[in-house]
Amino acid sequence: MTKKFEGIIAYPVTPFKADGSVDVDMLKELIDRLIDSGVHAIAPLGSTGESAYLSDEEWETAARSSLAAVAGRVPTVVGISELTTLGAIKRARFAERAGADAVMVLPVSYWKLTEAEIIAHYAAIGDAVSVPIMLYNNPATSGIDMQPELIARICKGVPSVTMVKESTGDLQRMHRLKQLTDGTIPFYNGSNPLAFAALNAGAAGWCTAAPNLNAELPLALYDAIKRNDVVRARVMFERQLPLLQFIVKIGLPTAVKAGLALQGIDAGAPRLPLRPLPPAAVEQLSEILAALKGTIAPGVSIAT
Amino acid sequence: MTKKFEGIIAYPVTPFKADGSVDVDMLKELIDRLIDSGVHAIAPLGSTGESAYLSDEEWETAARSSLAAVAGRVPTVVGISELTTLGAIKRARFAERAGADAVMVLPVSYWKLTEAEIIAHYAAIGDAVSVPIMLYNNPATSGIDMQPELIARICKGVPSVTMVKESTGDLQRMHRLKQLTDGTIPFYNGSNPLAFAALNAGAAGWCTAAPNLNAELPLALYDAIKRNDVVRARVMFERQLPLLQFIVKIGLPTAVKAGLALQGIDAGAPRLPLRPLPPAAVEQLSEILAALKGTIAPGVSIAT
Amino acid sequence: MTKKFEGIIAYPVTPFKADGSVDVDMLKELIDRLIDSGVHAIAPLGSTGESAYLSDEEWETAARSSLAAVAGRVPTVVGISELTTLGAIKRARFAERAGADAVMVLPVSYWKLTEAEIIAHYAAIGDAVSVPIMLYNNPATSGIDMQPELIARICKGVPSVTMVKESTGDLQRMHRLKQLTDGTIPFYNGSNPLAFAALNAGAAGWCTAAPNLNAELPLALYDAIKRNDVVRARVMFERQLPLLQFIVKIGLPTAVKAGLALQGIDAGAPRLPLRPLPPAAVEQLSEILAALKGTIAPGVSIAT
Amino acid sequence: MTKKFEGIIAYPVTPFKADGSVDVDMLKELIDRLIDSGVHAIAPLGSTGESAYLSDEEWETAARSSLAAVAGRVPTVVGISELTTLGAIKRARFAERAGADAVMVLPVSYWKLTEAEIIAHYAAIGDAVSVPIMLYNNPATSGIDMQPELIARICKGVPSVTMVKESTGDLQRMHRLKQLTDGTIPFYNGSNPLAFAALNAGAAGWCTAAPNLNAELPLALYDAIKRNDVVRARVMFERQLPLLQFIVKIGLPTAVKAGLALQGIDAGAPRLPLRPLPPAAVEQLSEILAALKGTIAPGVSIAT
Repeated sequence: MTKKFEGIIAYPVTPFKADGSVDVDMLKELIDRLIDSGVHAIAPLGSTGESAYLSDEEWETAARSSLAAVAGRVPTVVGISELTTLGAIKRARFAERAGADAVMVLPVSYWKLTEAEIIAHYAAIGDAVSVPIMLYNNPATSGIDMQPELIARICKGVPSVTMVKESTGDLQRMHRLKQLTDGTIPFYNGSNPLAFAALNAGAAGWCTAAPNLNAELPLALYDAIKRNDVVRARVMFERQLPLLQFIVKIGLPTAVKAGLALQGIDAGAPRLPLRPLPPAAVEQLSEILAALKGTIAPGVSIAT
Repeated sequence: MTKKFEGIIAYPVTPFKADGSVDVDMLKELIDRLIDSGVHAIAPLGSTGESAYLSDEEWETAARSSLAAVAGRVPTVVGISELTTLGAIKRARFAERAGADAVMVLPVSYWKLTEAEIIAHYAAIGDAVSVPIMLYNNPATSGIDMQPELIARICKGVPSVTMVKESTGDLQRMHRLKQLTDGTIPFYNGSNPLAFAALNAGAAGWCTAAPNLNAELPLALYDAIKRNDVVRARVMFERQLPLLQFIVKIGLPTAVKAGLALQGIDAGAPRLPLRPLPPAAVEQLSEILAALKGTIAPGVSIAT
Repeated sequence: MTKKFEGIIAYPVTPFKADGSVDVDMLKELIDRLIDSGVHAIAPLGSTGESAYLSDEEWETAARSSLAAVAGRVPTVVGISELTTLGAIKRARFAERAGADAVMVLPVSYWKLTEAEIIAHYAAIGDAVSVPIMLYNNPATSGIDMQPELIARICKGVPSVTMVKESTGDLQRMHRLKQLTDGTIPFYNGSNPLAFAALNAGAAGWCTAAPNLNAELPLALYDAIKRNDVVRARVMFERQLPLLQFIVKIGLPTAVKAGLALQGIDAGAPRLPLRPLPPAAVEQLSEILAALKGTIAPGVSIAT
Repeated sequence: MTKKFEGIIAYPVTPFKADGSVDVDMLKELIDRLIDSGVHAIAPLGSTGESAYLSDEEWETAARSSLAAVAGRVPTVVGISELTTLGAIKRARFAERAGADAVMVLPVSYWKLTEAEIIAHYAAIGDAVSVPIMLYNNPATSGIDMQPELIARICKGVPSVTMVKESTGDLQRMHRLKQLTDGTIPFYNGSNPLAFAALNAGAAGWCTAAPNLNAELPLALYDAIKRNDVVRARVMFERQLPLLQFIVKIGLPTAVKAGLALQGIDAGAPRLPLRPLPPAAVEQLSEILAALKGTIAPGVSIAT
């Protein structure tokens, strides 16, 4: 049965040991911590999880370990960002076999793709697996920009594509996608600083790495939206906005790993050429995180 | 005493007679119609009013006639978009003498301006008049893009600049401006399709030409926001979104004048090189307007 | 009879007196200086001449004085950059009556123009005057970007448009324009740092403000190209490139007026909001100009 | 001893068999054909060679086979475009062991890289191999844009980086790079339609896939430049420009493989998600290629 993705969809980082290998014990710990904090779904191997930087073997290890760690407690969607169609199919099949509830597919460009090539890419993956596909648009990392018109065409032509994650930060695209699909395709926000606006605009969920460092505020934002309390939602959003702005400016794996270290959790360094956050920026992040503590008044319910 | 600008700030077009001259009688009629529809303020000679295309004499006629037509019923802010500082001062002084409650100043570029030049431009106008200044950022029309950091500097350095109208359509700029000014500077949305998000984000008002064609839905959106009812606000916004998308895509004077003609009001053609809306687009606009009729259910209060 | 525009087309600044009025005596002196230096044509009231910042009366004064100063010694093309079609026609007619050999027309945008509107704008001006029109594409200042395909359509549809000045700095546009017009429309380079490449690509001339500060090197570059000596042309170009880069980075009127002051010529300040070049930048310009002196070895002929 | 890279550096495609594997026999044939046509160097596994789409094993097979095919007849530079530093080092070491004269390194982005990260990436590769490195800037495919200032810093800081390939198509960057390095770093043009201008500007060579389909005209262009005959060079360039524009618009592997098929050579299809050129575009390419035949008059020497 298809699981429903709604609310705060958390993206764990992929922790590395000192020797560069994937730290599967820490990966389990990070996922437990996220689920314990109350997030509504887990998305291993997204951009945050440095999916694109892993070898096939590492990727499979991380996928299998993550899904085992979640163990069905919340829905899971596994990220796939491969240059070749065959590579994407291989990973999608692996994720399905390992128990993923869905796969999130980002087409990646070296050579620009035509619309026909992008559609065929999704169709081929859709033919290869039975789990639903979350189409993922993130031109800043992938080099491919799918306009709402193209996304709507893919949703109509490839039945497996039942969800859309939009990370351009352009709110108008969400409105247009809703118009073009008559609201039948749930969309998810992947641009952290747009979370408040996207949820107001009707996003089914927010795909975010922020809960690695603070899950309370994203959950409080989502809760306020569900209660139709936009005034409280705005307050919750503005409190966490400096953190969201920081992790986006720096890049998610680098920023989140530095923040975890500040919280006493050793998830290792991001993979080269990415380098650990420089000390001055660590200091800034430390101040941002400190300012977030206790920002939700006691006695205020944030349960969904 | 300083008047407060809040809510729906309506931008009348500048109607022309067949001989090309400003039609002051029609201008009065258009303004009466807007005020009767319930808008909260009037902004003559904005982008919609083809301010940039008028000779000094025409501009003065339009400014004087508009302010006389409003006659203090609602606050007024007169738009000024001049290439030279002296030209802007001349128009600002005229507007003040003619009774404007505020002026809205858009720096316009032929040659790119340095930050020092932009600040000095606002300071010189601030020194020349006593009315408050609404800083107006609209790079798509003016060729000058003021980042939130620069806007915050201008607000701090030029005391007359007490309001900011942001028309880039970039929601993050509103958040950053609020952060940079600690929420002390009210900001206004000038990008029609961003109205819902901007008001949710705390915009004090929405500067819009839409009420020329339909004032009910913008007012209903604003009302729902004030009642903290984001669900209703979203519905009201989505109903009018096709109209907002259309008038922005076409260009405001061209689209609004065509829409007025469809409603039986002859505001003339936009000024050359702008040309009347082509028939196929008029047909499209006609359908969009027809679809809006009666979209607010009877019995639903939309009073503010 | 139609005069031929070829080679170095020099753009004088418009000098202002201390009271802000146009300094017609200095204007004559600047033009004499340019012609004496050997430039092949004069283009009054271009971007460099702050054409867009002048009142109708000032513009007419500057146009009339410039044409009188040239007195037929070299061909003249007068620049027109007006927001409205009627305004452009008015200035074009004035220039024709005052004896201009051609007019250079830049469509200027506040509201974006459709292709039909741009074509009609050129057609209306073409109908109003008998002198040839140089179409001028400069989106950085005008806000309107005409692709080669549109330019070719205008050239075909409006017989008066017989020359094209391209200032985007995109060399490929010149190649495409040549392809699209089968080489029948002479094109001119308006992007100073592209001068060497554009002349190699077959540009009929180089529209430039550089001769106000140094005419020798632009003329030497053009001469080397005409002699099919690309090695010498490159040397001549590289010598002057720092000056070209500087005046483009700063903005032409500001940079040229500062440079003239360094050469003992008082052309006044640029018009507000443009401000005089700050001292540190003046120092830099002074060094750049000093480095140019004597860079053409004695004994080397540079006559055309 | 370091081999000198000058002139036409040809990029073979990587041919695939029907089963998707690398066709090493055809690869040898393609390379022989290029060398026989007179090109000055061979660059296996560039963008044209679909380097980024190959598995490690395939890449090594293609690299080894290509270098064996060249067999020292001309200098070789092997392309490396890897997301991780370790991956790039692995390939660079392999290329060196297999006999490459140089490696061309393109940093590839998923997450944006800081300048420090880019410099460290080059330094790590420079430490790992003894062959010289050609820095490769191609933001359109890699997502990383290195400005001339950064490139000059890398050249100064990493002694192995002794050549720069610029593929942005922005001529000014070549001028700035030359200024910033006092002309000590040879630069190569990687933007096909810029070939004529880049060679005029002093590029040491032109990195191009065009010789797969027509080597005569690129060689004739280079020859004319070396003879300081810019008039002939322009003619040679303009003849081949439609081909260059076409292959760049389509994407090099797709266009070149289609062109080879038209010439009776079966290099297979590009790798999915890239798809074979659609029939209408094949027809267009066929016409372009037909028009090139016999465009160099008999009796005209084009030997270097």
